[in-house]
Amino acid sequence: MIHGGDIYRNHVKLDFSVNINPQGIPQSVKEALQESVDLSERYPDIHAQRLTERIRDVENAGNAGILCGNGASELFMAVVHAVKPKKILIPVPSFYGYEWAAQASGAEIIFYEMKEAQGFCLDEGIYEALTEDMDLLFLANPNNPVGNILSEAFLMKLCEHCLRKGIRVVLDECFLEFTGENGFGADKDHWEQYPNVVVVRAFTKLYAIPGVRLGYLMTGDHKLYEQIRKQLPEWNLSVFAQMAGCAALDEKEYRNRTVAIVQKEREYLIQALSELGITVYPGRADYLLLQTDLPLAARLLERQILIRDCSNYRGLDEGFYRIAVKEHKENTILIQELQDIEQKEGKNHGKH
Amino acid sequence: MIHGGDIYRNHVKLDFSVNINPQGIPQSVKEALQESVDLSERYPDIHAQRLTERIRDVENAGNAGILCGNGASELFMAVVHAVKPKKILIPVPSFYGYEWAAQASGAEIIFYEMKEAQGFCLDEGIYEALTEDMDLLFLANPNNPVGNILSEAFLMKLCEHCLRKGIRVVLDECFLEFTGENGFGADKDHWEQYPNVVVVRAFTKLYAIPGVRLGYLMTGDHKLYEQIRKQLPEWNLSVFAQMAGCAALDEKEYRNRTVAIVQKEREYLIQALSELGITVYPGRADYLLLQTDLPLAARLLERQILIRDCSNYRGLDEGFYRIAVKEHKENTILIQELQDIEQKEGKNHGKH
Repeated sequence: MIHGGDIYRNHVKLDFSVNINPQGIPQSVKEALQESVDLSERYPDIHAQRLTERIRDVENAGNAGILCGNGASELFMAVVHAVKPKKILIPVPSFYGYEWAAQASGAEIIFYEMKEAQGFCLDEGIYEALTEDMDLLFLANPNNPVGNILSEAFLMKLCEHCLRKGIRVVLDECFLEFTGENGFGADKDHWEQYPNVVVVRAFTKLYAIPGVRLGYLMTGDHKLYEQIRKQLPEWNLSVFAQMAGCAALDEKEYRNRTVAIVQKEREYLIQALSELGITVYPGRADYLLLQTDLPLAARLLERQILIRDCSNYRGLDEGFYRIAVKEHKENTILIQELQDIEQKEGKNHGKH
Repeated sequence: MIHGGDIYRNHVKLDFSVNINPQGIPQSVKEALQESVDLSERYPDIHAQRLTERIRDVENAGNAGILCGNGASELFMAVVHAVKPKKILIPVPSFYGYEWAAQASGAEIIFYEMKEAQGFCLDEGIYEALTEDMDLLFLANPNNPVGNILSEAFLMKLCEHCLRKGIRVVLDECFLEFTGENGFGADKDHWEQYPNVVVVRAFTKLYAIPGVRLGYLMTGDHKLYEQIRKQLPEWNLSVFAQMAGCAALDEKEYRNRTVAIVQKEREYLIQALSELGITVYPGRADYLLLQTDLPLAARLLERQILIRDCSNYRGLDEGFYRIAVKEHKENTILIQELQDIEQKEGKNHGKH
């Protein structure tokens, strides 16, 4: 498996490998999915009109072009097919999906390695790789699996640089709502100022509905918008996705609670894991990158707990793991199991 | 609207514009969709393993490569991106989706016009267009909107010709189950004999679940299979699609009933429509192509009945309409309304 936890081929009681909202699916979204069953005899709205209008309202997206996709992954692929880049830059470690989409485009892929010594943070060194022959940059804010965020100043300078060099930026904000930070579109002028930027967001993580598949993109470049639209299959959004999406967007309270819950539990996990001698990278999302010499994933799987072994991430190696920030009860079980593992075999393993 | 009936922007009591199984969603599929609601907090199986295995069983697909998609439309697009054709041939009139996918590939698109005088049947004349510089042929069996089928002898000769000329054939069998005819894969040897053929099928029409989005393709070319797989976004199948698909494949009785029901109602419609002086093209699917000088779509929409105005189909013009074959009660209402329309204004319109 290239991709994280796989509950379909493992016996699992707790899944810390997927980083979705610990609050679970909002009740209203569940009800919308139930209602959708009786609507599935109809074709979904090919324009996803109601959903798109609701996204525009909630995002305060002004005049930006908005396209919905069958998950963010479909949008990444549609973007590369629309842009037809010759050369794509991907900072690593990061989400494997960028590489999957980049490969589909047939472009040359350049990886910019973020350094462990710098906590895998993006630095000014990336400018060297962002030359005029580069066509597209995949950027995640916050990054995954590290969870660190880009400062607004750094991000805007980067967008400006890419604009001048004719480089498209695919800015993945799928986890941004967990951090409490403002996104690219918080300043509505950005859409017009940086038409080279395509922001991708997802319902998957924020509303805990990975089984439904729903993401969207926004861009100020209306010509590119048309080109991307033509790379999306017709009726790409199920009735379930459209109904769930509309219900989810009404869940303002749920969204507001998210940041506080995740922050509190993240801090609990950071402290408890650190006490166990496990290195925790400071992250702001609903997941944490860990580093330890203990064979953490294997030991936890014996206890039917799935975490993400990150050793196969480009730019990481053995000993890196990602865990989701879940509800307190589940986080406590994880920590107890880790304490037990540590007691049994921790003596031979230290921080490296 | 390029695409048929649009219940989202029209007020409609009967929708004859979409051609799905008149039996409606099987109860077991509905139950599977209901169960899926509680599973949508999980990522779907990225390999769609259970579903793919069940398709292999039911299709008796032997060693063919099978890939599931978010509707057939996603698969058409993945195929063109995998094949990277320079030149694509599309016989018309046919389903607009082929053109949509072909455009996304950037290939030159050649249209082969099937003649009205020949009932829009494919003839030997197509061989002239199937020269060595052609890379891909979209073929529908039965064709849509006409509903006519290709004889096995004609089809196999065409596949053979394309094999020799190095032309890929995307054979759309999405409506084949309604005709009672055997498909390409009925002879398991065909997969190996014609590795240039990719068969596409859908759950959408046969199980009346257009809102769910689920299709699949089969090919004997395992290298192409890999290339197509890499053009599909990760997690492209929702939990709903996978659960519904597995339940649907168990519905053997439902499938068996389909042909008989559709045939009986089709015959009723053909006779009643002919009596009204409307030209009906002989079709074998769950829809019929009509031709009349009456402004049929507009008049029926006034009565809140939606049919497919086919005047914007490439290769057709004003006066062509497609209706679905629905259940007897609904078909009767359609005919009654048509009789009423005919009485009120039919005197001024004849067959042309």
